Amino acid sequence: MENPFVARLLKAIAEKKSQCVVGLDPRADLLPRELAPPAGDAARPLAAKTAAAFTEFCVRIVDAVEPFAVAVKPQIAFFEQLGLPGLASYAAVVGYARKRGLLVIGDAKRGDIGSTAEAYAEAHLASGSAATELEVDALTVNPLFGTDGVRPFIDAAVRYGKGLFILVRTSNPSGAELQDLACDGTPVYERLGRAVEGWGETVREGARWSPVGAVVGATWPEQARRLRQCMPHTIFLVPGYGAQGGTADQIPAFCDAEGQGAIVNASRSVIFAWRQEPYKSRFGEARWTDAVRASAETMRAEIERGHGR
Amino acid sequence: MENPFVARLLKAIAEKKSQCVVGLDPRADLLPRELAPPAGDAARPLAAKTAAAFTEFCVRIVDAVEPFAVAVKPQIAFFEQLGLPGLASYAAVVGYARKRGLLVIGDAKRGDIGSTAEAYAEAHLASGSAATELEVDALTVNPLFGTDGVRPFIDAAVRYGKGLFILVRTSNPSGAELQDLACDGTPVYERLGRAVEGWGETVREGARWSPVGAVVGATWPEQARRLRQCMPHTIFLVPGYGAQGGTADQIPAFCDAEGQGAIVNASRSVIFAWRQEPYKSRFGEARWTDAVRASAETMRAEIERGHGR
Repeated sequence: MENPFVARLLKAIAEKKSQCVVGLDPRADLLPRELAPPAGDAARPLAAKTAAAFTEFCVRIVDAVEPFAVAVKPQIAFFEQLGLPGLASYAAVVGYARKRGLLVIGDAKRGDIGSTAEAYAEAHLASGSAATELEVDALTVNPLFGTDGVRPFIDAAVRYGKGLFILVRTSNPSGAELQDLACDGTPVYERLGRAVEGWGETVREGARWSPVGAVVGATWPEQARRLRQCMPHTIFLVPGYGAQGGTADQIPAFCDAEGQGAIVNASRSVIFAWRQEPYKSRFGEARWTDAVRASAETMRAEIERGHGR
Repeated sequence: MENPFVARLLKAIAEKKSQCVVGLDPRADLLPRELAPPAGDAARPLAAKTAAAFTEFCVRIVDAVEPFAVAVKPQIAFFEQLGLPGLASYAAVVGYARKRGLLVIGDAKRGDIGSTAEAYAEAHLASGSAATELEVDALTVNPLFGTDGVRPFIDAAVRYGKGLFILVRTSNPSGAELQDLACDGTPVYERLGRAVEGWGETVREGARWSPVGAVVGATWPEQARRLRQCMPHTIFLVPGYGAQGGTADQIPAFCDAEGQGAIVNASRSVIFAWRQEPYKSRFGEARWTDAVRASAETMRAEIERGHGR
């Protein structure tokens, strides 16, 4: 039986003709003025107001991008920065997006030794009566601890029909320091990639794609090509599109021969679209949700064109 | 000027004649009966009750171990497992321990690309008007993202007078898979260790120890010896003592020639001491806080004896 997360993701990709994921990375200093919390240095009373603004901002983005995106990816750090009210906002945003039918990839990059990893996995992936307010459809995971640190996440993904995206090659410049080290001629990221494919094989059950996906930064198409070859059943979550420099013509390198097997995340270039051209002139801040919507639609079209479709 | 976290830690070590850290890893199924939440499968209403039990459990442990431990290390995953009420419990426990004068090391192992890492660093390390309810004195950090992912944590540690402990060699068996890979003859953990020492050098300002510490598992004394040589100014946080197999006679390997520069964490063997011998017979569950206190005192004495002091 195909993993429920994978099945829903493939269905959304086909129905929406989209590989787009929109990253929800709210920042107090970049909100549209109509939502911005009042200025002032009384930071803690302000945190609850900022958290409420984050919720409203993300809810409107979910509404705007829903036709064009297969998933949203809230970055929990930006909510955690506001403390407890921020984490409540994260829960509210996750809940709203899931109710709207969008898949939610919790970008928490958790990772620890086995018993602790199990606690994180339950926190973010459990469903039904075991679910917390933090429940998402898929979670990003840090593999530094190796197999016994990753296994509890895989077990939870199988148990609850959820997905994982394990860090293989991150999009940031310094990612190379550790991830590109050559060990016996094989770079660390390729070893991680092969490990992820292997972990996926233990739970794939003959399906085209396993629920154990990988994070492979949009800024590294050469490495993606190599990884795609040794990871034939692993879905790639590709961050770094847009503001971080990833472009549509590079996306086929992350996919299989049919142009499948990757979803592409953009955060700033979509959620703050009204702050930059061409959307700034076209919509301005007053119509910021239209700008968000237009940029998501454009991203979808660009990626389709990159495939020659 | 010496970093305030480092100064407080050294003072506590000297005054309490202790290198002990007690890990606060509460688990619903292991609580003493007097605190255990009622059984039942209505998980969500239960979460708030379990969270309240976690707070009470950890507060009593803080009271019991305060004379013998220089710090407590709450593992946020076990609180996060309960969702939002659990995170409120984490904040309450952190706040209580700091008010009691114990240093608090938040075991969150956060790590991400630069802008996101900055949000995590602010969430956990900011003080004064910028502080959140999650504020701790030091934070564990995952270095997979390299320098630009770690830098925001270092900047925040300097800005707010806090400490960091960056993962170098984790205590779990599978930690070897990635961390022990040899790259040009040098294992990954040693490269990480040298990077941590280098990051520390940028902010040490001539002090004996930098605020950028390292996590080096108690289960790997051979590797610790090697790391100690190339990391002369880095304080080691040594997890895995007790239940995970680390013993007192191995601790000098983690220290400098004067037996300084390491703090040692035990979680299960202290906080659930009344569940195992010799504390089970001696105290039983009714006197569980006395068992916790006795095991912390014993741990302190064992480590001192390991040094031949």
